[in-house]
Amino acid sequence: MEYRFSEKVANLKPSAIREIFKSLTDPTVISFAAGNPAPESFPIEQLKLLSDEIFSDQSVARRALQYGITEGYTPLRELIARRLKEKFSIGSESDETIVTTGGQQALDLCCRALVNEGDTVLCELPSFIGALNAFRACGANLVGVPLNESGVDLNALENALKTNQNVRFFYTIPTFQNPTGITATQETRKAVLELCTRYHVLILEDNPYGELRFAGREIPTIKSMDREGRVLYCGSFSKILSSGMRIGFLCAPREIVQKVVVLKQVNDVHTNLFFQMLCAEFLTRFDLDGHIEKIRALYRRKCALMLDALDRFVGENAIYTRPEGGLFIWCKTPDLSPSAPIVRACLKQKLAVVPGEAFLCDQNGVSDGFRLNYSMPSDEQIEQGAKILGQVFSNRSLG
Amino acid sequence: MEYRFSEKVANLKPSAIREIFKSLTDPTVISFAAGNPAPESFPIEQLKLLSDEIFSDQSVARRALQYGITEGYTPLRELIARRLKEKFSIGSESDETIVTTGGQQALDLCCRALVNEGDTVLCELPSFIGALNAFRACGANLVGVPLNESGVDLNALENALKTNQNVRFFYTIPTFQNPTGITATQETRKAVLELCTRYHVLILEDNPYGELRFAGREIPTIKSMDREGRVLYCGSFSKILSSGMRIGFLCAPREIVQKVVVLKQVNDVHTNLFFQMLCAEFLTRFDLDGHIEKIRALYRRKCALMLDALDRFVGENAIYTRPEGGLFIWCKTPDLSPSAPIVRACLKQKLAVVPGEAFLCDQNGVSDGFRLNYSMPSDEQIEQGAKILGQVFSNRSLG
Repeated sequence: MEYRFSEKVANLKPSAIREIFKSLTDPTVISFAAGNPAPESFPIEQLKLLSDEIFSDQSVARRALQYGITEGYTPLRELIARRLKEKFSIGSESDETIVTTGGQQALDLCCRALVNEGDTVLCELPSFIGALNAFRACGANLVGVPLNESGVDLNALENALKTNQNVRFFYTIPTFQNPTGITATQETRKAVLELCTRYHVLILEDNPYGELRFAGREIPTIKSMDREGRVLYCGSFSKILSSGMRIGFLCAPREIVQKVVVLKQVNDVHTNLFFQMLCAEFLTRFDLDGHIEKIRALYRRKCALMLDALDRFVGENAIYTRPEGGLFIWCKTPDLSPSAPIVRACLKQKLAVVPGEAFLCDQNGVSDGFRLNYSMPSDEQIEQGAKILGQVFSNRSLG
Repeated sequence: MEYRFSEKVANLKPSAIREIFKSLTDPTVISFAAGNPAPESFPIEQLKLLSDEIFSDQSVARRALQYGITEGYTPLRELIARRLKEKFSIGSESDETIVTTGGQQALDLCCRALVNEGDTVLCELPSFIGALNAFRACGANLVGVPLNESGVDLNALENALKTNQNVRFFYTIPTFQNPTGITATQETRKAVLELCTRYHVLILEDNPYGELRFAGREIPTIKSMDREGRVLYCGSFSKILSSGMRIGFLCAPREIVQKVVVLKQVNDVHTNLFFQMLCAEFLTRFDLDGHIEKIRALYRRKCALMLDALDRFVGENAIYTRPEGGLFIWCKTPDLSPSAPIVRACLKQKLAVVPGEAFLCDQNGVSDGFRLNYSMPSDEQIEQGAKILGQVFSNRSLG
């Protein structure tokens, strides 16, 4: 039989990252391609204890295994809202916070709530592939705005706001951006909010890595500067507790959240309730900030290891970012020529990286960069992988 | 600030069921309005044991808390596919089975994959509100096809297939339908498949209650009769293990599943992995069929209690179905007049039922029925609620 698909979906390709993951079944391949948190960062002992307690009290267990409300487990919503307020000055009287099935669901449902087919969404260039594909699946017209060292290029952003019709929102990861690791300066953030205000465009601020700072000074989120309800803020427990449990959240103007809740109800009714309760108990009884301190120390060490190895093996044969947090380093060819030959040569030498093309708005575009991850590989793999990268770059400069 | 929403979402109302649930915070209200499985049906002891084991093995726990693949945890997918094959003769060489975040996600993503705005989806009348709203959120044009005692009205179905343009699929719950409790006969199922084949229309067969038969003989699913890849089949563990864990599945032609996987990736990346592993272990190590037998016995007793009480208190003042399984009885006014006054009078007497309007394709339609649930209320509440219903109906026939 032949099947006819909806137009929005017919052209969607499986994510390039996903295809790379599938090729990683070869255990001799070193992967710098992951987007995963380090497995040693999961607080297994504490989760085991809390899980035991939930299952040991019949009435609590029955609640955890029964249907829940779409907005999320109320104590968890309150704990998240309080944490956002106290740590990040996020959330006004007119905002509401709901639990989502990972940060990804918040991105998808916000776009479904706001975007008609053909409407424009502005994205950083390069940007997170999962968000780009979610927006594509809504039929959005993606327009990329280049990044520089201090965040999005403000002239390019203004130009995009000025020249595009029906811009519904600007999607940004200001802190430890995926894939570049770049953190927008406070000045850039202020200017982004001002520009979007001037052009009446919403901001979707995605902050899955914000708590993973291991160097430099905290910079306020854009949402914390928002006085009029222009910013939708997404976060997640994926990088600080567990990614497999799929718990994220959205803090946004109540009117928008209400529409997202209606969509969430028809999408998955609610997020796994047992893990919402686990999460709430963890926040109440354990020291999440202390736990995050340990993850920061781990990534500080891993990132330094990778940068040191890159400095030794690659050096001036490439350009790479020096992130102050998060999971990623972005590496570019020094002459800004296409990076695809480098990526292919690495894979031949059994090093997997994510090609920059995956992060472009234009699915036929060409990139001069690729993404490196330091949270997943072992110390030895970091050394060995950087060596391969060094060889590939030096063969290239020789060839 | 004023917000502008996408057209598809702007007109979506929060589900009527959900609003009723919120009104149920009054503990003196007896609820026949639930759609929940009985809390005593959750196998807490077994899940506790398996959960303990996962958390006690570091490498297993790390896997359970890490990102997984979008299609679902491979052992669980295989166990579901094998069970569908062995127990229900479902699944051909060209089909694929994936795990979804509850059956609801499968309905939503199938519709997103297949339906362009304005395309028609045929639905039973009345039908499951969660499905109707999911289809609405995709911009589908809903056309209702009435049910009779043996399932969907075949003449009406043929007429709908003949007269509507761009019909993308027929959505049906042939077994213990929600909200009516009606089970389509084998003849009706065959005829549905033949009609949809003749008019080149897909079938979305939703079977969340199929394992809850407590009377009568098993009837083959429509999917089991499908030879050409016309039927998409959704199922769920919500009514046989736990609804709060949000694990369902889709078995459908590979080409369609591949598109659904792309959508699932941008929607929630994957379903809670810990509970996928728990589910797989349960299926491997415990006797799910034996567990389901106990749930059937429970609902057999509960349903008989409610029917007996209705027979005593309501009798011929109303028309109600006598289901052979599932969770619901459908009750109608004897003269097929609007049921809204009955529903309102019940709520005044502190009995909550779900008004039939919630289950219509036409959001401004009028219903002669309402839904009763027997899995959640206690034996005493069933007796007391039926008494209230009897009084309301007899006041009506007196008035």
